[in-house]
Amino acid sequence: MIITTRPAEGIALVTLARPQAANALTLPMVAQLRATIAELARDETVRVVVLAGEGKAFCAGLDLKEVLQGPDAPRGPIEAMALQEKFAGLMREVAQARFPVIAVVEGAAVGAGMGLALAADIRVAGPAAKFLVGAVRIALSAGECGISYHLPRIVGGGRASEIMLTGRPVGAAEALAMGLVTTLADEGEALEAALALAAQIAANSPYAIKHSKQVIRANLDAPGLDAALELENHVQCLALGTEDFREACAAFAEKRAPHFTGS
Amino acid sequence: MIITTRPAEGIALVTLARPQAANALTLPMVAQLRATIAELARDETVRVVVLAGEGKAFCAGLDLKEVLQGPDAPRGPIEAMALQEKFAGLMREVAQARFPVIAVVEGAAVGAGMGLALAADIRVAGPAAKFLVGAVRIALSAGECGISYHLPRIVGGGRASEIMLTGRPVGAAEALAMGLVTTLADEGEALEAALALAAQIAANSPYAIKHSKQVIRANLDAPGLDAALELENHVQCLALGTEDFREACAAFAEKRAPHFTGS
Amino acid sequence: MIITTRPAEGIALVTLARPQAANALTLPMVAQLRATIAELARDETVRVVVLAGEGKAFCAGLDLKEVLQGPDAPRGPIEAMALQEKFAGLMREVAQARFPVIAVVEGAAVGAGMGLALAADIRVAGPAAKFLVGAVRIALSAGECGISYHLPRIVGGGRASEIMLTGRPVGAAEALAMGLVTTLADEGEALEAALALAAQIAANSPYAIKHSKQVIRANLDAPGLDAALELENHVQCLALGTEDFREACAAFAEKRAPHFTGS
Repeated sequence: MIITTRPAEGIALVTLARPQAANALTLPMVAQLRATIAELARDETVRVVVLAGEGKAFCAGLDLKEVLQGPDAPRGPIEAMALQEKFAGLMREVAQARFPVIAVVEGAAVGAGMGLALAADIRVAGPAAKFLVGAVRIALSAGECGISYHLPRIVGGGRASEIMLTGRPVGAAEALAMGLVTTLADEGEALEAALALAAQIAANSPYAIKHSKQVIRANLDAPGLDAALELENHVQCLALGTEDFREACAAFAEKRAPHFTGS
Repeated sequence: MIITTRPAEGIALVTLARPQAANALTLPMVAQLRATIAELARDETVRVVVLAGEGKAFCAGLDLKEVLQGPDAPRGPIEAMALQEKFAGLMREVAQARFPVIAVVEGAAVGAGMGLALAADIRVAGPAAKFLVGAVRIALSAGECGISYHLPRIVGGGRASEIMLTGRPVGAAEALAMGLVTTLADEGEALEAALALAAQIAANSPYAIKHSKQVIRANLDAPGLDAALELENHVQCLALGTEDFREACAAFAEKRAPHFTGS
Repeated sequence: MIITTRPAEGIALVTLARPQAANALTLPMVAQLRATIAELARDETVRVVVLAGEGKAFCAGLDLKEVLQGPDAPRGPIEAMALQEKFAGLMREVAQARFPVIAVVEGAAVGAGMGLALAADIRVAGPAAKFLVGAVRIALSAGECGISYHLPRIVGGGRASEIMLTGRPVGAAEALAMGLVTTLADEGEALEAALALAAQIAANSPYAIKHSKQVIRANLDAPGLDAALELENHVQCLALGTEDFREACAAFAEKRAPHFTGS
């Protein structure tokens, strides 16, 4: 249900592959996706991850029938919490992965699927993309899978409130205008656009990629400018001592492309 | 001076009704508005509140003549602070109300009137809407009535600084483009658009509405993703145990509209 | 290399004047700029500072050759950190200056130059403006000079991640659309537009200007609405007791322009 390929150097493509159900997430899929993220994190050749859905949808969210209405549906608060933590854990691991994650949203990204797209660092959309907070329509809180953390920090508090309280769909053009996605590709070309973006990022040095992502995430929560600068300074001091920085300087002087080795 | 009606099930419409003074706020009006918010919070049938101004303006802000230049004008720092706290208390109570608040801005929203609109969760505008931080023009700080908290979190820090430091007006189209409002209605139709939006929200379950609003507000201040997920998980676990969630699942399976009871 | 002029009452214009190197920052320039900011802060007649670059570029960032590859290039972590702190200190002092700073970006604002523009409160651009996070392209972290703090708070987290991780240029129209700049002037007219904006700000009272800036900065980091309101209230109470507020009220009643004295 989760397919991983390596379309180019430094890039892993992870595909939610349950198109018959619009890639709705079952518990085994969540477990497999989390294991995949963990495995890719251990593979030093992976610098950027692209996350896509097979078929028309990105991800229809949690599979309501299988997860909440089937024989394994949670009984009582302890099991309900364990279920929540599985989904929330996935979001945390995507958001805090040591590599940037680019979500490719060609169609619907609903509920946990929207949460997954928001947990990625960058979102690329096709013209049929549709973001939808589903929970509020079925008597649940709109805040789940990190949506109440990520959405206001991406599109601002007013838009986040309106989208979350109504549960209305946000289309591709609107998503681009508000910064919910940063690239809007032509029909069927979102994956290609995301891979091009991934290649652009992967051309930078491994240290730069990993620590740029991590410092962006960390300083999104910085209590103030002073703390943010302090972290930035330390990250940069280490980078200034790397072989790859010396190589970048040499390449710059010699007007050639640098060759980074991750040392 | 504050008129409350119930235009539809679950919705209360609160109108600032002092059109001869562009709905400028006097101390009795502030007290009445705060009492109205508190009263509506105790009424379980109220799920969404729409806040509008009678006549052309939304609210011209604090009534300078009555509040700061009249016989009851504050003398000395203790009285000045007590006055500030009355206005700030109103903003806090709107922002932290247990129901979503939708502000309908047909005309000017100035100073405390802008603060009031920003304290609402969602803003719907008409083409003549105009947002203006007045204080800086009369030798006061632009940060008042929560504007320095809300504005950067809604439109971003650069725009907030420019708007607040100059005290220039922001018109309807610009407000829409920057997410300061999320719906721009045709002339004279902003109230209708806001009521339609309120109905869309009120169609969700009472628990979902109340706790979606609260989790959005709480996680706007979350120190990081982990804390945000922890709160989301607990809110959702409770929701999963409600009768209304079971009803939503049944309605979904039977392809009918759910009937929520708030249990 | 840093030229300071006083083009109008209350306004200081600080110009990076090393056009032969696209105003790239050397250590003496950074020191001089920091000294200039400190000096202007001590001059009570300065209410607003406009920061511009001579020639086509705003600032090409740190002068790689002189700072990192010359005879004074840092050796070892202690010297690297001392270097970081000089640049970071400049950003902190601009961001936390007691006056609003308006950056005029006619051309490239790269790396530390982008950091400097972001540390300003307001950015005015010309059509050739170009913002670029350079570090990630030369094996360094994109988070430097406060960029990882400021950019997400100005344009939102999704756009910030994409811009920082790729190191791609952001042009003037896009910068305006996302709120990275708030005024886009015609070619060669950005400085004039910035001075007009500065004059609009400088027309307010000294207390209002200084404390509006400071409360905006402080409440960008407020842990929640309550703390933000508490600070706003205290700032405003002091303002209500100033002579300039009484003058503003008198001028308002007499329908004339106020004359502020800073008392």
